[in-house]
Amino acid sequence: MAATTELISALLLFLLICSSDISSGEKTRRPEPCKRLVLYFHDILYNGKNAQNATSAIVASPAWGDKTTLAAPNRFGDVVVFDDPLTLDNNFRSAPVGRAQGFYLYDKKEILTAWFGFSFVFNSTRLKGAINFAGADDIMKNTRDLSVVGGTGDFFMTRGLATLTTDAFEDDRYFRLRVDVKLYECF
Amino acid sequence: MAATTELISALLLFLLICSSDISSGEKTRRPEPCKRLVLYFHDILYNGKNAQNATSAIVASPAWGDKTTLAAPNRFGDVVVFDDPLTLDNNFRSAPVGRAQGFYLYDKKEILTAWFGFSFVFNSTRLKGAINFAGADDIMKNTRDLSVVGGTGDFFMTRGLATLTTDAFEDDRYFRLRVDVKLYECF
Amino acid sequence: MAATTELISALLLFLLICSSDISSGEKTRRPEPCKRLVLYFHDILYNGKNAQNATSAIVASPAWGDKTTLAAPNRFGDVVVFDDPLTLDNNFRSAPVGRAQGFYLYDKKEILTAWFGFSFVFNSTRLKGAINFAGADDIMKNTRDLSVVGGTGDFFMTRGLATLTTDAFEDDRYFRLRVDVKLYECF
Repeated sequence: MAATTELISALLLFLLICSSDISSGEKTRRPEPCKRLVLYFHDILYNGKNAQNATSAIVASPAWGDKTTLAAPNRFGDVVVFDDPLTLDNNFRSAPVGRAQGFYLYDKKEILTAWFGFSFVFNSTRLKGAINFAGADDIMKNTRDLSVVGGTGDFFMTRGLATLTTDAFEDDRYFRLRVDVKLYECF
Repeated sequence: MAATTELISALLLFLLICSSDISSGEKTRRPEPCKRLVLYFHDILYNGKNAQNATSAIVASPAWGDKTTLAAPNRFGDVVVFDDPLTLDNNFRSAPVGRAQGFYLYDKKEILTAWFGFSFVFNSTRLKGAINFAGADDIMKNTRDLSVVGGTGDFFMTRGLATLTTDAFEDDRYFRLRVDVKLYECF
Repeated sequence: MAATTELISALLLFLLICSSDISSGEKTRRPEPCKRLVLYFHDILYNGKNAQNATSAIVASPAWGDKTTLAAPNRFGDVVVFDDPLTLDNNFRSAPVGRAQGFYLYDKKEILTAWFGFSFVFNSTRLKGAINFAGADDIMKNTRDLSVVGGTGDFFMTRGLATLTTDAFEDDRYFRLRVDVKLYECF
């Protein structure tokens, strides 16, 4: 029974793909980015004792969770608000060139996955404006892509991808993401 | 007094529409989708007793709500995180071809309306990548549109619309949405 | 030591900007909006006593917060769901021409900043559809820009910017935003 269902699903999926555009060869012909920047952001989660250092905090959790401990299993349902420093290298103590601000939420019981809505906010003499991101983060993969859904200031109306790599992941309280921002629409 | 205010509002709105581009005839000349796919997603809300089957959970609620019961009136203020199976037909037991992951929140006291931020995530040999969605869901209407704000992998840089239909809605604990994804920008 | 770090950061940032496209002169050549509309939205936060008038409610807060009082410092971590009336002028009693629906969250401890995900929803004989927004709101600035990430109905597939101005800000319970929506992609 389950096998039949899977067979039918495979067939339907095959038809689905065929009925969409046939230009599968074109998928690899991606344009070159018109702008590219690599930044790191550093997230220190509030655990009830580190109010001075924390850059993020759990603000919502499922019925079985609380706001100073990440929920089990796999943090499912925890929503975190963050204001993380953005640096040009992977050194937490480097001078920030901007902030990553917004939220992420953990959304799977079986493994670690997250969904992000946030912005890189720049406000220096060299760089002004914001890049706005949204998308799913399949954390257990080496690299994964979010969408750049818009931008303001120096990033007016931009679109593109952000490729995330987990650069460090320590004791549930600190992580560092390398973000390779590739913009394909620039103005 | 209220009548005067309404009259002025109507006049201002008329001016607003006139001052925007006059190409109202063009509104109907929508392009054809470059890709189209129809999927169903199935949401089973955690109610305190169904941890095994639940695919979603209330993680935030207003002061008068809690996390195992939908708030009254009209669930206003409840935020739900979900990891729902995506199927090609409306059978909950069909083999999933992907997951719908993210959140929705109920945002009106008078009737049921919601706001969604989520992704369709594909990770099979046939289909890889994600489609990212955002927008308002006017639940009481037969069909309503969200925005496709970006995509990754096989859906690199896509944009478009997702037309939602409530395919089933049972006892506050299960709903099934039919999602007709029409992509107008493909790469 | 800190000075060296800053120097290196400045140098890296300089290289970063140089390595992106050199068309800095083009930044000022922004296109003209294809459509523009100015609207006001009015937010009255639930405080435990104003259930009749409130248009928004705190639904999540950090460990040190609650749902009827804005958290200190600077409301960091509070998440608010809203269904606010949209008017054509700054009079709260004007007839609404639509609703602003979605959420905002406060995301900085040192000053007031927020992140928004929401829609303008129109459902009149004159105007139908939605405009979907996402982005960072640097509240202490006179004006700041969010992204228009998509639209439906009369705003099919649109993109652009929304320039926010705080038009009123009263006793932590009411604010009014002027939103100048400039659309650069119309269909």
